[in-house]
Amino acid sequence: MTRQHKALAVRSAKSHTPLKCSGHVSKEILMKGTLLGDIPVELPEEIFDTICLSENVKIERIVSRGHASPTGFWYDQEKSEFILIVQGSAGLKIESEPDIMVLKTGDYLNIGAHVKHRVEWTDPACDTIWLAVHY
Amino acid sequence: MTRQHKALAVRSAKSHTPLKCSGHVSKEILMKGTLLGDIPVELPEEIFDTICLSENVKIERIVSRGHASPTGFWYDQEKSEFILIVQGSAGLKIESEPDIMVLKTGDYLNIGAHVKHRVEWTDPACDTIWLAVHY
Repeated sequence: MTRQHKALAVRSAKSHTPLKCSGHVSKEILMKGTLLGDIPVELPEEIFDTICLSENVKIERIVSRGHASPTGFWYDQEKSEFILIVQGSAGLKIESEPDIMVLKTGDYLNIGAHVKHRVEWTDPACDTIWLAVHY
Repeated sequence: MTRQHKALAVRSAKSHTPLKCSGHVSKEILMKGTLLGDIPVELPEEIFDTICLSENVKIERIVSRGHASPTGFWYDQEKSEFILIVQGSAGLKIESEPDIMVLKTGDYLNIGAHVKHRVEWTDPACDTIWLAVHY
């Protein structure tokens, strides 16, 4: 691998375009980015950006600004999901639990496959940035 | 499942003990915790806490306080690793790259399997908290 190729292998993922980043593609591949940048001024809908995709795992950045799941909507996912609040706060309702679970910066939650849940609220005053690992 | 069992299923992982959290164990399992708490006053060595473990994925919290990899040591891992700096900053050296890569809060880096790397430095003035997804 030439120096030029190596330089290309380290690429910014600021645009958060889907990228195959498993070691199966190339053992040289490095992919760097930030979760805190590249957020539009207007955010009529939540943003879901796939920042890492392999056979077993999908890692997303999600940005919410006061958004919530539509009335009556429940996530019911084939895979387990690990979420981390990188910035902001959110209220999650798990169908089987009586109370809304409040998550703030640094909090994580693992949600098993087919555990029905919905986002009741996200902070209206700042962007809530989530990291979600689907596995 | 009784109400009592449901309450037990939602458990704090503040102690960061290894936990099988895949949907294969139980579709009811929820596991909540924080990356920012439960940090000892004295930190002679970095802390590596497995907070989520399944067949395909291991998710860790790492806490560093001015730590670096030992001289001459390189990580050379069987699996790919996605890292996120949740708090603090660090300098990573990738063997194949000329410069030290600086990562600060919110930055992520995907490191392919067998891409040799080492931690050159972490912030000496505050705890650097990493989320690492091995997949």
